[in-house]
Amino acid sequence: MDSSDEQQEPIPTDYDIAQATEMEPIWELVEPWGLGLDDLQYHGEYTAKVKHHAIDRLRDRAEDNEGNLVLVTGMTPTPKGEGKTVTTVGLGQTLNHLGEDTMIAIREPSLGPVFGVKGGAAGGGRSQVLPMEDINLHFTGDIHALTSAHNLIAAMLDARLSQGNDLDINVNDIAWKRALDMNDRALRETVVGLGGESGGTPREGGFKLTAASELMAVLCLAEDLGDLKERVARIIVAYDTDSEPITVDDIEATGPATMLLRDALKPNIVQTIEGTPAFVHGGPFANIAHGTNSLIADKAAFGMGDYLVTEAGFGSDLGAEKFMNIVCRLGEMTPNAVVLVSSVRALQYHGLEQWPVDYDEIDESGVDALEAGFENLDRHVSNLQQFNVPVVVALNRFPDDTDEEVQAVVDHCRDDLGVRVAESEVFENGSEGGEALGEHVISAVEAGDEEEFEYLYDKTAPVTEKIETVATEIYGADGVKFTGSALDDIERMEELGFGDVPVCMSKTFHSFSDDASRKGAPSGWELEISEVYPSAGAGFLVALTADALTMPGLPARPAAADMDIDEDGDITGLF
Amino acid sequence: MDSSDEQQEPIPTDYDIAQATEMEPIWELVEPWGLGLDDLQYHGEYTAKVKHHAIDRLRDRAEDNEGNLVLVTGMTPTPKGEGKTVTTVGLGQTLNHLGEDTMIAIREPSLGPVFGVKGGAAGGGRSQVLPMEDINLHFTGDIHALTSAHNLIAAMLDARLSQGNDLDINVNDIAWKRALDMNDRALRETVVGLGGESGGTPREGGFKLTAASELMAVLCLAEDLGDLKERVARIIVAYDTDSEPITVDDIEATGPATMLLRDALKPNIVQTIEGTPAFVHGGPFANIAHGTNSLIADKAAFGMGDYLVTEAGFGSDLGAEKFMNIVCRLGEMTPNAVVLVSSVRALQYHGLEQWPVDYDEIDESGVDALEAGFENLDRHVSNLQQFNVPVVVALNRFPDDTDEEVQAVVDHCRDDLGVRVAESEVFENGSEGGEALGEHVISAVEAGDEEEFEYLYDKTAPVTEKIETVATEIYGADGVKFTGSALDDIERMEELGFGDVPVCMSKTFHSFSDDASRKGAPSGWELEISEVYPSAGAGFLVALTADALTMPGLPARPAAADMDIDEDGDITGLF
Repeated sequence: MDSSDEQQEPIPTDYDIAQATEMEPIWELVEPWGLGLDDLQYHGEYTAKVKHHAIDRLRDRAEDNEGNLVLVTGMTPTPKGEGKTVTTVGLGQTLNHLGEDTMIAIREPSLGPVFGVKGGAAGGGRSQVLPMEDINLHFTGDIHALTSAHNLIAAMLDARLSQGNDLDINVNDIAWKRALDMNDRALRETVVGLGGESGGTPREGGFKLTAASELMAVLCLAEDLGDLKERVARIIVAYDTDSEPITVDDIEATGPATMLLRDALKPNIVQTIEGTPAFVHGGPFANIAHGTNSLIADKAAFGMGDYLVTEAGFGSDLGAEKFMNIVCRLGEMTPNAVVLVSSVRALQYHGLEQWPVDYDEIDESGVDALEAGFENLDRHVSNLQQFNVPVVVALNRFPDDTDEEVQAVVDHCRDDLGVRVAESEVFENGSEGGEALGEHVISAVEAGDEEEFEYLYDKTAPVTEKIETVATEIYGADGVKFTGSALDDIERMEELGFGDVPVCMSKTFHSFSDDASRKGAPSGWELEISEVYPSAGAGFLVALTADALTMPGLPARPAAADMDIDEDGDITGLF
Repeated sequence: MDSSDEQQEPIPTDYDIAQATEMEPIWELVEPWGLGLDDLQYHGEYTAKVKHHAIDRLRDRAEDNEGNLVLVTGMTPTPKGEGKTVTTVGLGQTLNHLGEDTMIAIREPSLGPVFGVKGGAAGGGRSQVLPMEDINLHFTGDIHALTSAHNLIAAMLDARLSQGNDLDINVNDIAWKRALDMNDRALRETVVGLGGESGGTPREGGFKLTAASELMAVLCLAEDLGDLKERVARIIVAYDTDSEPITVDDIEATGPATMLLRDALKPNIVQTIEGTPAFVHGGPFANIAHGTNSLIADKAAFGMGDYLVTEAGFGSDLGAEKFMNIVCRLGEMTPNAVVLVSSVRALQYHGLEQWPVDYDEIDESGVDALEAGFENLDRHVSNLQQFNVPVVVALNRFPDDTDEEVQAVVDHCRDDLGVRVAESEVFENGSEGGEALGEHVISAVEAGDEEEFEYLYDKTAPVTEKIETVATEIYGADGVKFTGSALDDIERMEELGFGDVPVCMSKTFHSFSDDASRKGAPSGWELEISEVYPSAGAGFLVALTADALTMPGLPARPAAADMDIDEDGDITGLF
């Protein structure tokens, strides 16, 4: 199909489309999916949290359902994003449209990036979740609750340090920063505790984005309130002068921090633009954490429908790898298919010889650049195939893609790679634009065999071996160079009994490699690991490459500067 | 009545009482008060925000109602609190019980103090607002929204400073700190922007409690969304190298900051333990701001009932003075009666020769200390009488007060001061314990004359004169000594056109004087004003005495350490 005619008509903004959609009260919408009035804690008319007793019931029901799990992941990200959330929501809508009862589960947007460069993060066009304004702003307050709990722990730690320090906290070995859900580079590195005795103990400190807090990872992996509390208690916040870990429990913050997360643990249910239910819950970073929505939402979803479509952050080297090796392992889940989102422009971006380029000029670069970019796609496909899960490539079609470009991608996937591939026009056309993709996904799921799924590494392998496996098998590195404190850290972790857990790699998402400027599928390089630390509450080790940015900054002209609200409450600039 | 029998039975905790109360769904409860389903934005079953269109309707209705305004204030605070919120809620319940349609409006608790020494702040015993756990924790997220909006402004300001500084922001003249709703002394004074160029511009900075943000004051004084936006735009965040003010609007943060406050501006309605509606909305500090709940809640309340009982923060020298001179002036309201809350123990505390003392030993100190403490009460009474509003003293009776002590207070008020006085047992007995107080309030309102109400100063008077008036007429100072930059600040403010506004005094709440250790009614002293700055959005000038603490710390053993939650979600330690 030639979409040049469509180009003439301006496509309405996500906000316009959202505003024009008649929403159904959430209690009416979820009733056929097995949730009654008493199961819901309302936030306005169109959003609800699902209460814990209902989650328990849904989990029991899940055992009788098929429970097909479809993960949506993507190529190595480019500056504009290739439509992973759009595809997730659109595929969920499509599967329902094709007659399969399908739930969607995605992460909740973080305010910081919304005000930075990203704008909203609730899908877009005719594949979005509603009410988009609420979802993109404070939503049900989960991230605010995490910010409070995180900073309560920090305040209790500093109070303990400056008022007697009975735990012998080493002021130079504090592992717990403060957190804000705001892109604020001035808070990355700070000195706190100034102003004399009444200001506490002077020390270096800093802030991370709340999405990067270990509490976010913990919330998204916790099974229930009891499990959440145990995980919170275990979190390491500092080391004492003998290098022994000091936990949240040691500073007596377990109770109040968990209390602050009581409602945040309840998954949020909203609706897609086509009136099907969707969970939007939790949003851990996909670099220093595992990058997928809460397990509690996934588990509840299996009690509501036969399919669950969920999304992993960044490219498949980060989000999908962690979903398989960490989330599926901890949550005892098996993916039935993986959808890899690609686009003509992303392929061209990865195929260009010169980077960075002005992204808007890429579409002039034609089929040659596109084909040069296949190497990025190919590595993502072969990586995912290592887990023995069927892969479906979704080509997210943009209005100015030519038929020739689209056909080149389809031919390459089908003929060269031998994988299922489908154009997706869910942004423009909702479920009708996703029929081909949906049918491929259903056939992949039906043809697949759950028994064949396997993790990439054994969790009891030595820590260095687990890191090397991911580096060589997924990133395409020749090997791993451990620098800085990394080997000492690993020894200490193994001594402390934190060795037999999955490894969460913290690497730039801009490249398969640890160098953000290397596009395509770089080879002939070694991964450098400079530090390893435990996320004892989440239950994994974090292996850090060079600079893992946990507090983004605002650009010279932030997206916020173009946002506005009028006296009637109508919002502009949020999309 | 001799209450010694009651002492034998342990009084259930606020939490136990709250848990044992059967709540009514909020939409059923408010229906007879003129609010329908479409007027509400639910937060769970028992809390709702009132939508803007309903507020407009209630305001119109208010013109036909009597609109009796009763302000509850207190003596100079003591370490344990004398029950001002309890009395406010209890009096509201009582007036309903006596047949008057009465609304209550109080501030929403700030998390920081809840975790510090204060515990919950939703009243107590049989005079509290419910659901107390939600109200004391995240509630409807208003304070979180303010934290986000405040820190967005800070991040946009620092981004502007470090990325070109086209506004010539003077890095040493930045007036906007960051904010958190957490008692965290280590954040009082910090250095931010470290870590090289990617970390922004190094500079001194600090955090205040969100309740102390000018945005909180602005939210509580705004008439509607349009007015809120205009106030936000005017807020001064820094000065340029020519000492000209730089506003929120100059850094293009008006739109997104107001957008973040869209829902926070809608007042929250909940229920008392006796099933009457209450607004709980907004909570500005009563030292650097005006210390009362939102005007928008007050205005809506007058459209729902014939009486409104509301509360002002700290002692009458702070909260009530500001309510009269700032809030009533800006909101065009007239108080019909003031209730001054006192207690036997607070009087004894102010009457002792030695402070500080172990508070629990005070009850042994008897009638002599009590009578010595009358001087504090007397000054509060005579201060309030200057506004020509009838004063009713409420003696909040505690279980171990003796009849002799109680009678001494009653006799003193009635015979020596000639004011209405009533024992109040609303904590223990709800509205039945407040009948005497309620009847006195009704008779005071009916005997009073709104026309006689007057402000203490003219807002067009010179700034120094306004400050001197409050210092001498309310605090009992001999005069005012302007030190530091105060006189220069005042000159600059008058030049900038900020002279003709009310003055918001920032003084310790522990004493009438600016020395926290001076109890009773100190005389023979001068008030020292060291700095004056504009709250241009709120519409007042702030005059600072020595140390105005805007970021409290945690004590050695914070209240949080005794809070817990079990796996069923039941909370302990929050009361």
